[in-house]
Amino acid sequence: MATKSNTPVKIIPLGGLEQIGMNITAIEYEDSIIVVDCGLSFPDDGMLGIDLVIPDVTYLIENKDKVKGLVVTHGHEDHIGSIPYVEKQINMPIYATKLTMGLIEYKLKEHELANNVKRKVVSYGQTINLGCFRVEFIRTNHSIADSAALAIYTPAGIIVHTGDFKVDYTPVYGGIIDLQRFGELGKKGVLALMADSTNVERPGFTPSEKTVGKTLDHIFDDNRDRRLIIATFASNVDRVQQIINSAYKYGRKCIVEGRSMVNIINIASELGYINIPGNTLIDIDEASNYKDDQLVYITTGSQGEDMAVLSRIAASVHNKIKIKPGDLVVFSSHPIPGNEKSVYKIINELEMKGAKVIYQDTHVSGHACQEELKLMYALTRPKYAIPVHGEYRHLKAHAELAHEMGIERENIKILKTGDVLSISGDMLEVTGRVPAAGVLVDGLGVGDVGNIVLRDRQHLSENGLIIVAITLEKGSGMVMAGPDIVSRGFVYVRESESLIEDCRMVVEEAIQDNTGRGSADWNKLKTAIRDALGEFLWKRTKRSPMILPIISEV
Amino acid sequence: MATKSNTPVKIIPLGGLEQIGMNITAIEYEDSIIVVDCGLSFPDDGMLGIDLVIPDVTYLIENKDKVKGLVVTHGHEDHIGSIPYVEKQINMPIYATKLTMGLIEYKLKEHELANNVKRKVVSYGQTINLGCFRVEFIRTNHSIADSAALAIYTPAGIIVHTGDFKVDYTPVYGGIIDLQRFGELGKKGVLALMADSTNVERPGFTPSEKTVGKTLDHIFDDNRDRRLIIATFASNVDRVQQIINSAYKYGRKCIVEGRSMVNIINIASELGYINIPGNTLIDIDEASNYKDDQLVYITTGSQGEDMAVLSRIAASVHNKIKIKPGDLVVFSSHPIPGNEKSVYKIINELEMKGAKVIYQDTHVSGHACQEELKLMYALTRPKYAIPVHGEYRHLKAHAELAHEMGIERENIKILKTGDVLSISGDMLEVTGRVPAAGVLVDGLGVGDVGNIVLRDRQHLSENGLIIVAITLEKGSGMVMAGPDIVSRGFVYVRESESLIEDCRMVVEEAIQDNTGRGSADWNKLKTAIRDALGEFLWKRTKRSPMILPIISEV
Repeated sequence: MATKSNTPVKIIPLGGLEQIGMNITAIEYEDSIIVVDCGLSFPDDGMLGIDLVIPDVTYLIENKDKVKGLVVTHGHEDHIGSIPYVEKQINMPIYATKLTMGLIEYKLKEHELANNVKRKVVSYGQTINLGCFRVEFIRTNHSIADSAALAIYTPAGIIVHTGDFKVDYTPVYGGIIDLQRFGELGKKGVLALMADSTNVERPGFTPSEKTVGKTLDHIFDDNRDRRLIIATFASNVDRVQQIINSAYKYGRKCIVEGRSMVNIINIASELGYINIPGNTLIDIDEASNYKDDQLVYITTGSQGEDMAVLSRIAASVHNKIKIKPGDLVVFSSHPIPGNEKSVYKIINELEMKGAKVIYQDTHVSGHACQEELKLMYALTRPKYAIPVHGEYRHLKAHAELAHEMGIERENIKILKTGDVLSISGDMLEVTGRVPAAGVLVDGLGVGDVGNIVLRDRQHLSENGLIIVAITLEKGSGMVMAGPDIVSRGFVYVRESESLIEDCRMVVEEAIQDNTGRGSADWNKLKTAIRDALGEFLWKRTKRSPMILPIISEV
Repeated sequence: MATKSNTPVKIIPLGGLEQIGMNITAIEYEDSIIVVDCGLSFPDDGMLGIDLVIPDVTYLIENKDKVKGLVVTHGHEDHIGSIPYVEKQINMPIYATKLTMGLIEYKLKEHELANNVKRKVVSYGQTINLGCFRVEFIRTNHSIADSAALAIYTPAGIIVHTGDFKVDYTPVYGGIIDLQRFGELGKKGVLALMADSTNVERPGFTPSEKTVGKTLDHIFDDNRDRRLIIATFASNVDRVQQIINSAYKYGRKCIVEGRSMVNIINIASELGYINIPGNTLIDIDEASNYKDDQLVYITTGSQGEDMAVLSRIAASVHNKIKIKPGDLVVFSSHPIPGNEKSVYKIINELEMKGAKVIYQDTHVSGHACQEELKLMYALTRPKYAIPVHGEYRHLKAHAELAHEMGIERENIKILKTGDVLSISGDMLEVTGRVPAAGVLVDGLGVGDVGNIVLRDRQHLSENGLIIVAITLEKGSGMVMAGPDIVSRGFVYVRESESLIEDCRMVVEEAIQDNTGRGSADWNKLKTAIRDALGEFLWKRTKRSPMILPIISEV
């Protein structure tokens, strides 16, 4: 191990702070940079038409000769979702556990990058060398198997990054989180702890994943004569394992539906992370060979996502699954903040179709609550606390918890995305900034939708638009055709013909004042039309559609 | 009291079912109709640009000679918000308690209807005659004072409508809900109970409003050196009363900010529903005469509403109140489903500015939980149960509760908006339908934004639009000008010039194939442009903006 140096190591988060999503952090020392995770985030409500948000990796590109590799803590989208986009900009070898790598590989194949990117599967307890860093992967528990914390050995000291974690004493797959190892590291001396802030506001402990298995088993037991449909997170392989276990126990066949879930279950199955007894899993087209009480569907849609299976079933647009009165639908999930209304909408639709719906007490979180976080501090006894993976309110509450655990306030740092934190045995200070923001992805376009485009979409969505088309004669500036008025998203034209007529008159007046005296000043004319029509419409309707004058010249 | 008749009474909900909002129910017997409540609802996420939703009262207009009056249970927007819009269509005398009427009057004045609509203030225990009906107002508790349940004496029997209610044994203003009266009515014989389903999924009892007062008082006590800002629901006069009480106790001045809150507190104060000791309430411009720890601001914005005071403070756009580190902000509220992200956003912004924020355990609901609902059933012992004021899942759960309380399933009816329920001693059946839907209000326009307009706004919000402007020569169909391509909300044009150029070429080709051979078929030409450009853009960008070909002729 390198002798502790007083030259600081730099920790540079390029995402994952201020929001839960898009986790990516660079760690740098002299001419070595490693990147921890590379995730995406989902668009805010204001990001109309945007599909996903990826990090701005300008800093990595500018320093690409230093970048030694990407280490990944686990296979959730907010940790691996940006990998294909970033690998197209900077080629980094990837290090991850087996299941995590399986999911990453699937993404790389989708983007036709699988042959371009070097990959190495790492086991728990294994350490890899990346430039001047060594990175040890440590077993944790989370809502996806094969999750790891990282002990990053730097010249300034050991940085422990928990990744997303909880403490589960009775995990479904794999073992208990390696608490002993965290204790050993703590005894060695941990410079800084970067820990998961998601559930820091919740007192107590997160219950074990096995408790959900028991609850689901009771549901199977109490509803033996109903067809079952269970929606859960596609990536929660352990949850699906427990459902399959109960299905087998009660003599039911399982049908997995939903592209993302089918993919993940396939990958997990190939790699040995899920055990499917005998012929328990059948294809949806075999369902007709069985009675309803012999079936359980495991589907996507637990968050009310429009295109997911359960939403389509609820809206009666799924071509193979139709709700029948008596069906039991279970949401083995909890609405992520922002998704509550979508989820309730689906529940109402399902109940109106005669299904019984269970959606309470059928899920546990994958993130540590207060007592588990305190345990992590007690084992690792870090000098510095750098809360991560949370909105500002979570990071703030986490800072309070760290202080309660005995860490001095000057040794606790809440960072912002783009901060350069310099850290050593006697230093913890933000010493610079790098470019860091979300890059918006819409369809195939990456980064071509910015604030102006979003602002226009916002305006259009509020009140629609009105197009004013005029054709002028070159030279004379006389009006040859128009004004023609076309509106969309403003009013229902057939019922508002007199309003549109009045618009035309207002526009004609504005045009008269600004044309016919030789070559027209188009900008002046457009502004006159926009102002006159805008004012008229506001007075008349208290609405302000986008007004687009289009001038042609013949 | 009229002899019980076996001619059925009809209960016709025109809103308030399938959603929490827009409560309005018609009750009809022969040539008498009374209307219970007249509320609005707030737009769904899909209703872009819509301000509010009001009920379709076609049925009332068609039967306006029968309509004897509007009785109102309490002054919340989802019970009174549509009154001005409906009164413009059908003039109904209004009966309500004093505070409720004060709030209704304010609305009527805003819409310049105050002189047109007959009004009568009713006290608890008072009965009014409306055609063949008699309506008795009964005291209840809710999150606004002067809330009433109604005992509606019909020829078929007594219908009890709880309005929105809870049981509060230690109310802040007024007395305990009149449980004795419900018991008396139950002994007389209640035909049907229409009760508030909002909290039916919650076990236990809703805590008293006074518990919040205690919590807030502790907060005042524990934070004597901080400036306080407390956000709550504008209509919760009792909450504001308790804040004012604590302010007075701890020697602070109160500043009320936010138009809706200022209005309601003024009305409540004039009518005697709130007691403001001495000079406790000051104007915001006097704030500079006091130190920070002598002030408490009471504001709107507890739901993260964009234009409300707290949101503006958090976004640093409120011109009189700026957050200072050390400020304490209290959300004396709970996010209504759908508002969670907006509320968390404000919390994060406030914390980032250095404020301490308290937002848990500082609110109680105004709606009865399971044990209070069971109490209502035990007192009124209705023959029929007609759950109201909830989404379908609430109505369904309420039906289960009624059944547990001993009511036979055939005597429990879950209605849909627009159902005509015929009810008598030996009948409970939906016997017809009336028009009933939400009418969308956008600016000054009522009902002129329908599905087509909303669908267009949705399309525009997702991917923006592309206008293709062409000018053709009359007769020959030759292209005289264009195609000019203008886009908004699609891509940032300066960076996508080559894409726009390629669009032009695609369009030129489509035009060539469809013009120049005499008078063009405009529809065919537009379709050709839309198809060609749409296909090209989808392949290139995986986006589908709205494509609007505009053709002029000279």
